[in-house]
Amino acid sequence: MSRFKGKSRIRPLVRALTAYVPGEQPKIRGLVKLNTNENPYPPSPKVLAAIKAAVDGRLRRYPNPTADALRGKLAKLHHCRPDNIIVGNGSDELLALATRAFVEPGETVQFFNPSYSLYPVLAEIHGARVNAVPLAKEFGLPTAPDLRRNGAWDFSAPLTFVTTPSAPSGRGYGTAELEELCRAQNGVVILDEAYVDFARENAMALALKYPHVIVSRTFSKAYSLCFQRVGYFVGDAELIAALQKLRDSYNVNGLGQVGALATLADLPYYRKNFQRIIAARQRLSEGLRALGFGVLPSETNFIFVRPPKIPAEAWLEKLRERRILVRWFRAPETRDFLRITVGTEAQVRALLKAARQIARM
Amino acid sequence: MSRFKGKSRIRPLVRALTAYVPGEQPKIRGLVKLNTNENPYPPSPKVLAAIKAAVDGRLRRYPNPTADALRGKLAKLHHCRPDNIIVGNGSDELLALATRAFVEPGETVQFFNPSYSLYPVLAEIHGARVNAVPLAKEFGLPTAPDLRRNGAWDFSAPLTFVTTPSAPSGRGYGTAELEELCRAQNGVVILDEAYVDFARENAMALALKYPHVIVSRTFSKAYSLCFQRVGYFVGDAELIAALQKLRDSYNVNGLGQVGALATLADLPYYRKNFQRIIAARQRLSEGLRALGFGVLPSETNFIFVRPPKIPAEAWLEKLRERRILVRWFRAPETRDFLRITVGTEAQVRALLKAARQIARM
Repeated sequence: MSRFKGKSRIRPLVRALTAYVPGEQPKIRGLVKLNTNENPYPPSPKVLAAIKAAVDGRLRRYPNPTADALRGKLAKLHHCRPDNIIVGNGSDELLALATRAFVEPGETVQFFNPSYSLYPVLAEIHGARVNAVPLAKEFGLPTAPDLRRNGAWDFSAPLTFVTTPSAPSGRGYGTAELEELCRAQNGVVILDEAYVDFARENAMALALKYPHVIVSRTFSKAYSLCFQRVGYFVGDAELIAALQKLRDSYNVNGLGQVGALATLADLPYYRKNFQRIIAARQRLSEGLRALGFGVLPSETNFIFVRPPKIPAEAWLEKLRERRILVRWFRAPETRDFLRITVGTEAQVRALLKAARQIARM
Repeated sequence: MSRFKGKSRIRPLVRALTAYVPGEQPKIRGLVKLNTNENPYPPSPKVLAAIKAAVDGRLRRYPNPTADALRGKLAKLHHCRPDNIIVGNGSDELLALATRAFVEPGETVQFFNPSYSLYPVLAEIHGARVNAVPLAKEFGLPTAPDLRRNGAWDFSAPLTFVTTPSAPSGRGYGTAELEELCRAQNGVVILDEAYVDFARENAMALALKYPHVIVSRTFSKAYSLCFQRVGYFVGDAELIAALQKLRDSYNVNGLGQVGALATLADLPYYRKNFQRIIAARQRLSEGLRALGFGVLPSETNFIFVRPPKIPAEAWLEKLRERRILVRWFRAPETRDFLRITVGTEAQVRALLKAARQIARM
């Protein structure tokens, strides 16, 4: 009669999942933290002031359930309508909703390898099949004819994630090559532009041109609001409406909405920081190349480098001994590389100094 | 080959869902808003100060992904361990996660009718079957023998939601009667205690006594933090671990964690407000009884009343004409009632004055 007599009350699919292990957030003083791609600069003073000004008796009220004011401003920014936009509790929430809106359990969630490690997690949580297809040489985007020849790619997958610019490689993709891929694809394609503000091109136009293309953006990285959890999708109104049906009623906290709105009113502050980060990226790349590092060209706020002499994992440890935290991924296609977040000018100097010492050992 | 040729890219289950219509949040000045059970009092000055003090460069960092500090304090408060606790983006997020952790699509999500209108929505989103069983007379909790005789209740449903104190009736349930129901149930039982701070008893002990019972709490209502979206579950570590696997990595925004932590450090402020609201509830109930209203006994921050002379829906309109907003539910079992949030003393006087005018018409 009962499925619980002596059995678990938890779904088998959930029991089989591995618990998520959150990224390292050590509390060591004086640490140079270049491992999580956070922006080294704080939000603009106007944004901080706007959030502080909203901290009053209003907190007792529910936030706007559909983030109307924010969707209105975003629609103006991207030259579309508010019903082309959904705001999420970080873009992670929206990526999860997409698996549940567009993919039947058992169907395929597809992406390139390496890319954002969340995609296979979302697929597994939903009981979907994972199709992870290798990127081309030097983490380039394979062309549709190449993918056809290769045979592993599924042009009818109901959901495909493309991280663009690419992570962890930092490589940027042109809108023309992304468009070719989107046109070859039948199911929904999500262009995950978490780092696009540091790139030469963005593919927003594709989300408004094709009924099956969505662009994902976030206030976390470029706009220094990780703490506040605000991301959004832009795409066809029908796809967006499907996602709206699945989200929690009050999914975006009120102060997050306030912070994102104030951010959109002070974009020049952020654009200046993008330029500083891009300049620091250049200095960091040149400095490391001079020490014998292989440095992939980056269009993000991090660089992906192949260190000289000793293995990347040993570099990770030696940098850590010097209180500098960077990121290393154990998988075969990434184990020869380090991913280094571009910090402030001072952090770049600290990293180069430590790298010089290690290279001379 | 493709399931998309001329077809929707959205799952049939999702296409069949009705879009959620958010509750009314009118922008009329001077409105007495007694329709959404928000707390009439602001968060404590110490909580507001703590949140403001956290609005600085830290916003660029990710929040603690597992709300460790908050879970630690909550564990002390409830005399359990941090792994008995999961924090959510409002308790709504956790109620949704529970359907996905404990119920296979096609299985049953069960609850009493009337109760929180979100439960059937969550079931439908997940493709689960809904079993809504009527409450007993005057919205009382049916006994297990009564439920057995009745036959509609499923003692093996994998997930049962019980709103306690009950909504929209406001009626409180004793821990003994809840325990009897839990003991008769094989699947997971979630005791949704959103309003429990206004009640005589709470059932937290059951969550720590039985491996299949979870208690849901929120900082929204009693603790005036709706805007910040923080709720939590307390229960068996194995059930909690299953929910942890399914949530978004950074599901609780940082300033929400700060606000909830500061709230736990200033509970006397809130307890004083609970007493004020309970006293106002008493005056409101007596005042309406004197005007011929049937008033159900309430253990929440709202009352459920049967108005005299004209239908409840007409009362809704006449109160609205006097700038007082209350809630009316169209369903057969609730259509003779109004749900009125207990506001400040001044709001209670305004409501009673308006009700006196309408009753005399």
